[in-house]
Amino acid sequence: MGEFELIRRCFMQARQGAGVVTGIGDDCAVLQVPAGQQLVVSIDTLVEGTHFLPGTPPAEVATRLLGAAVSDLAAAAATPAWLTLALTLPRGDADWVEPFAAALAERACELGISLVGGDTTRGATLTLSAQVHGFVPAGQALLRSGAQVGDRVLVSGTLGDSRGGLETLLQPRPVDADVRYLQQRFHRPEPRVMLAQRLRPLVHAGLDISDGLLADLNHLLEASGVGAEVERDRVPCSAALRRLYPQDAADWALSGGEDFELCLSVAAEQVTACLAEADRLGIRLTEVGRITAEPGLRVLDGSGQLIEGLARGYDHFKEST
Amino acid sequence: MGEFELIRRCFMQARQGAGVVTGIGDDCAVLQVPAGQQLVVSIDTLVEGTHFLPGTPPAEVATRLLGAAVSDLAAAAATPAWLTLALTLPRGDADWVEPFAAALAERACELGISLVGGDTTRGATLTLSAQVHGFVPAGQALLRSGAQVGDRVLVSGTLGDSRGGLETLLQPRPVDADVRYLQQRFHRPEPRVMLAQRLRPLVHAGLDISDGLLADLNHLLEASGVGAEVERDRVPCSAALRRLYPQDAADWALSGGEDFELCLSVAAEQVTACLAEADRLGIRLTEVGRITAEPGLRVLDGSGQLIEGLARGYDHFKEST
Repeated sequence: MGEFELIRRCFMQARQGAGVVTGIGDDCAVLQVPAGQQLVVSIDTLVEGTHFLPGTPPAEVATRLLGAAVSDLAAAAATPAWLTLALTLPRGDADWVEPFAAALAERACELGISLVGGDTTRGATLTLSAQVHGFVPAGQALLRSGAQVGDRVLVSGTLGDSRGGLETLLQPRPVDADVRYLQQRFHRPEPRVMLAQRLRPLVHAGLDISDGLLADLNHLLEASGVGAEVERDRVPCSAALRRLYPQDAADWALSGGEDFELCLSVAAEQVTACLAEADRLGIRLTEVGRITAEPGLRVLDGSGQLIEGLARGYDHFKEST
Repeated sequence: MGEFELIRRCFMQARQGAGVVTGIGDDCAVLQVPAGQQLVVSIDTLVEGTHFLPGTPPAEVATRLLGAAVSDLAAAAATPAWLTLALTLPRGDADWVEPFAAALAERACELGISLVGGDTTRGATLTLSAQVHGFVPAGQALLRSGAQVGDRVLVSGTLGDSRGGLETLLQPRPVDADVRYLQQRFHRPEPRVMLAQRLRPLVHAGLDISDGLLADLNHLLEASGVGAEVERDRVPCSAALRRLYPQDAADWALSGGEDFELCLSVAAEQVTACLAEADRLGIRLTEVGRITAEPGLRVLDGSGQLIEGLARGYDHFKEST
């Protein structure tokens, strides 16, 4: 059996999901979108050396890839359904592919998404593109546009952990519970699918935070034609991040990137309902700022003073088109 | 403006197509599949140095990528609709991206497919993954399974030209009309979308020829649980290929790969109707063999004798999962 035949068999063990008329093994997958639903799609690429360190265990590449990709479905308040995978490998390497495929299948099952097709190719750089497909009731996708002046800006979870997790890999330190927590946040993002669906009727606009809060909130502001103020001291950081990186925690929470938390624009009178819904799911949700008529994004310190010169972006080679 | 912002703007000029509720620029594209239609998807990757030569002009990378990807929709007899693109670039290089995006937009328009999203990343190796989305009336996708004993095997166009075109790039020779023809067949595949749709009611099974006639026909035979005999001398070669590579033409037609022509299994009594339909479209369609109960694929010479030891595959690093 050739190496690529082995790879094919690894992936063919993936669970056949709902709505899959014809899955892996033909020229195309044939899929049935439920009546009354719109299709929501997003494609995301991870490149070894750009998005993860060379030598990252294959299972962690799989969970990171799926978490990041499915987070885009969460950002649209969509229900995950199907996955396709374009995998470029330096070698047809079963030792890498088998644990990757096993972790991918397990994580896909947890996230309610099923592998329906792919293309495996040889190339010098390990590169993975995942396209995710989901559904929303017609007209109900959560978009970046729609934020209104006076809205409050809410974020889920804690920010900056993923950047902290990366730091523990770049500058290794003794592994304790905090280090493990941050590395898990880096390697295994938890897309906020359920939270987005529950909050969808209550919010005006939203997206997921992949380039850092400031960069992504800017995208939302541009799409909505508004501005915002963010109070730096309200941006939620985990205790682990504050303990390990007290000097950097606040900056990374604003600009660290790869958080895969939600950033939402919510009418002031809906904030309480949103917080209650998040509380029912056991997910932290924090008000960090407000939408303004004045364009641009301003970050304020604890005394309400504008902080100048904050880095806006995270990785200009990783912007989405 | 950053280089990747420029790239984003290049792609945002793509035409907004039918059924696109929200296109490029949000976390996801939101798409409306027409009532009564099933969604058909396929993802294809091209890697510089594996699938095309380093230094290939960007416009030719674009036409090759789209031709190969849309050919999978043709293989399913689907109508092309939407495209997403994962582009990994060694540099954020506007000199490369602008002509690539322009050629992609033009070819996408010709093929009736519209760019709805993507992800642009940095990596050491130029890598492009295109996911194509199309529709078929529910239950009408053309599949690899379904070939029946006694069916005739038909192929569209001529085979081996793409392999010949590659040879003219690997071993350059004086450029004449034949060389230009073969290079065009290599760089600008013409997916047989219309032919597949017209023939769909008349055929039992089919696929597109990407790995070479023998390798792909084997896929069809395995999916259908049958065998086949192919008459080598009936496999159609172009005059250009025969003139430039008289020693290799027949082999390349059987095993050359990247032809992106259709291979169809058709009941004997439907062959005439198929040929007439192809004739109306001005597309060559040729009977090259028949489906047998005996498993396996046999190639026969002009006197009906079995030819042993023919290469089956084309590129084992490029199999699809």
